[in-house]
Amino acid sequence: MKRIAIFPGSFDPYTIGHHSIIERALPLFDKIIIAIGINGAKNSMFTPQQRIDSIRQLYASEPRIEVASYSGLTVEYAKTQNANFILRGVRMIQDFEYEKNLAEVNRSLTGIETVLLYTLPEHSHISSSIVRELLSFNHDVSNLLPKGLIL
Amino acid sequence: MKRIAIFPGSFDPYTIGHHSIIERALPLFDKIIIAIGINGAKNSMFTPQQRIDSIRQLYASEPRIEVASYSGLTVEYAKTQNANFILRGVRMIQDFEYEKNLAEVNRSLTGIETVLLYTLPEHSHISSSIVRELLSFNHDVSNLLPKGLIL
Amino acid sequence: MKRIAIFPGSFDPYTIGHHSIIERALPLFDKIIIAIGINGAKNSMFTPQQRIDSIRQLYASEPRIEVASYSGLTVEYAKTQNANFILRGVRMIQDFEYEKNLAEVNRSLTGIETVLLYTLPEHSHISSSIVRELLSFNHDVSNLLPKGLIL
Amino acid sequence: MKRIAIFPGSFDPYTIGHHSIIERALPLFDKIIIAIGINGAKNSMFTPQQRIDSIRQLYASEPRIEVASYSGLTVEYAKTQNANFILRGVRMIQDFEYEKNLAEVNRSLTGIETVLLYTLPEHSHISSSIVRELLSFNHDVSNLLPKGLIL
Amino acid sequence: MKRIAIFPGSFDPYTIGHHSIIERALPLFDKIIIAIGINGAKNSMFTPQQRIDSIRQLYASEPRIEVASYSGLTVEYAKTQNANFILRGVRMIQDFEYEKNLAEVNRSLTGIETVLLYTLPEHSHISSSIVRELLSFNHDVSNLLPKGLIL
Amino acid sequence: MKRIAIFPGSFDPYTIGHHSIIERALPLFDKIIIAIGINGAKNSMFTPQQRIDSIRQLYASEPRIEVASYSGLTVEYAKTQNANFILRGVRMIQDFEYEKNLAEVNRSLTGIETVLLYTLPEHSHISSSIVRELLSFNHDVSNLLPKGLIL
Repeated sequence: MKRIAIFPGSFDPYTIGHHSIIERALPLFDKIIIAIGINGAKNSMFTPQQRIDSIRQLYASEPRIEVASYSGLTVEYAKTQNANFILRGVRMIQDFEYEKNLAEVNRSLTGIETVLLYTLPEHSHISSSIVRELLSFNHDVSNLLPKGLIL
Repeated sequence: MKRIAIFPGSFDPYTIGHHSIIERALPLFDKIIIAIGINGAKNSMFTPQQRIDSIRQLYASEPRIEVASYSGLTVEYAKTQNANFILRGVRMIQDFEYEKNLAEVNRSLTGIETVLLYTLPEHSHISSSIVRELLSFNHDVSNLLPKGLIL
Repeated sequence: MKRIAIFPGSFDPYTIGHHSIIERALPLFDKIIIAIGINGAKNSMFTPQQRIDSIRQLYASEPRIEVASYSGLTVEYAKTQNANFILRGVRMIQDFEYEKNLAEVNRSLTGIETVLLYTLPEHSHISSSIVRELLSFNHDVSNLLPKGLIL
Repeated sequence: MKRIAIFPGSFDPYTIGHHSIIERALPLFDKIIIAIGINGAKNSMFTPQQRIDSIRQLYASEPRIEVASYSGLTVEYAKTQNANFILRGVRMIQDFEYEKNLAEVNRSLTGIETVLLYTLPEHSHISSSIVRELLSFNHDVSNLLPKGLIL
Repeated sequence: MKRIAIFPGSFDPYTIGHHSIIERALPLFDKIIIAIGINGAKNSMFTPQQRIDSIRQLYASEPRIEVASYSGLTVEYAKTQNANFILRGVRMIQDFEYEKNLAEVNRSLTGIETVLLYTLPEHSHISSSIVRELLSFNHDVSNLLPKGLIL
Repeated sequence: MKRIAIFPGSFDPYTIGHHSIIERALPLFDKIIIAIGINGAKNSMFTPQQRIDSIRQLYASEPRIEVASYSGLTVEYAKTQNANFILRGVRMIQDFEYEKNLAEVNRSLTGIETVLLYTLPEHSHISSSIVRELLSFNHDVSNLLPKGLIL
């Protein structure tokens, strides 16, 4: 059985924190699908297509990483992709509790397990929302994005 | 590269919570080494050999699970076994913070990553120390141990 | 003095987690009023009347449980009902802190004490918002609702 | 059925925080047994008899409060007293998690439920160990003890 | 070098909790600027000018306290005021994590350090949003506001 | 009034985390006294004199930093030094709660306020106990100590 993980998120935009989780988790899986959840009710700074394009370009040379978007329940999408794991990074207590409930919902619905990695300490303050806020004030955010990501 | 994980702990004794983590993590790895840390300064209820024997017997039919004991730093032992991951279950905030610091120490020393699974909700109150306390009052603990484990 | 508790919430919808708290708390009180807070600013999936009807029908044979709706401050409503306690279930740290502040506000305003029970581990991931999300994707949620509740 | 609660602890010594929990919980129960757990392995500042005497004297005029000592598992003692509840005060996250596991162990062993009250904010920093440390440096601790308690 | 701190917040309205932090922090700084962040997207109960006026009047006799409003990033504003510190009160875990990320963002952008004081226990349940909710139900909130503040 | 802070701890040994707090807090105070608490009941790896000598030598060129040892209550020592603040670094939730109670005990006893800085993310996993454990296995710990500290 191949080990396939979904890495779900909004990625609005994709940060150096997300990138680090993917790089560190890659040895664990045969394929990781970076899955951009589309939520009609939530305003985004970047369109789904912009996010797909920029992340795909970042990993153009890594065949084990796929990038896609989805709507609906994450675990339903995971099943359509034959994924057997959900991958998540956790930064802090608030994440820990939020992910814990979500992981149990997902496991009890489908048996898909959630695998956690700790975010690196030096990335623990970085989130897409902080990047968006800094961008909205025209701040340089290049230190918060993966090298080579073109927004 | 094979995916080899160390699952370190005292396992004094091995509980149904530990067992569940192993069963749920097994699809993720080619081999998991249940590694019983021997700490001279800490009193134990069961000898290392008792713990090794009971856990080995439990997984006698599963060739991907090995059981061993070690002393010294976990990551040093992991390197001698060519393990590239440390596997840990997290039950609560206190675990989350403790494991976070340990994971970062281990990663910064050797590059070995720690992979976390959430303990199942129904096992969240089970720990080796609770089992030991109940045993010390001659309480039945069979619900807290894996089926088939002989202490 | 009779022991009367308010169990306030949105109950949109009433889950198996809420039901379990009520069942476990019932021996503690002479009467529990399940009090559906109506907040004009918040969209709900079920109307207040639908929620009242379904919960009332669930407890039709239990005279010590009443179901009502209210608007305004919970403690003001509690006083009109001669309630001397507020009953709450706590699942996680986030609840613990939120309820702690609320309990102190309520106590300092009126002297009404908040009594907490831990949510059962097997219900710790269940919330009305998870039920609503699953319902919005036409998922079966019968495991997350009390047996006999008709939405 | 009478509502009888055990309020277990070391009470070495009994603080104003413990006293406040008892006073606020008393309307909830027909009887509260302040149960001093005797743990042979733990050094104490006050003997069990000193603790029993001082707490009994404090509540001499309140027939619904009993004071006793016990060894062994709290829930076993609770059953011998026909207690159907365990009462606990929670001050902070660390308590919350510790009590949560204990409550679930006790519930799953015997069905006895744990009822929580929040410690008052102005008592949140007060613990028996702080009192002992201050006493060891001959500090005045009268503000940290219930009025009328004679150590 | 003078020690100048920004105390940023919405202060909608200014509570006894905010006041206590300022009073306790004043010995630490040569000047504290109470900086009312104006966020166009957020509805407020009191206008920025009302908030400025009421807080200024409160500290009319204290020359080391200034009151101002700002929009944009807090650290950008801090630099325009030659502030070298950001002052924040922390009440609970949720604050602790939120402020931690913000402090690191601010420090990494500009080198400005965040200095924390614990909110007093007796103020730990008080927040501007609680005050607003009580006001919306015409409740007396004078105990939650600094003596002398005129809303 | 001069701003004098005590920075109390065991410092067994002094880590890069402690050093970073001192460097970042120095602009806030006229003098910081690094105060090595001597606790007869606790085994240490380094003698008080070794700790005093190594820290003093590290800050030999900084006249605003003093190094001393003390026994007894921290606030009593602080008063003998005319210190008006206690300085502490906080790394995680466990620290946050521990320090919160201690800060309130100290404030209520003497009025001395505790000032907190967040530990830098890259130091969040570093503690004296981790350094001691690595040293006990003859591991290189130079990355965890301030440059120039000679143990």
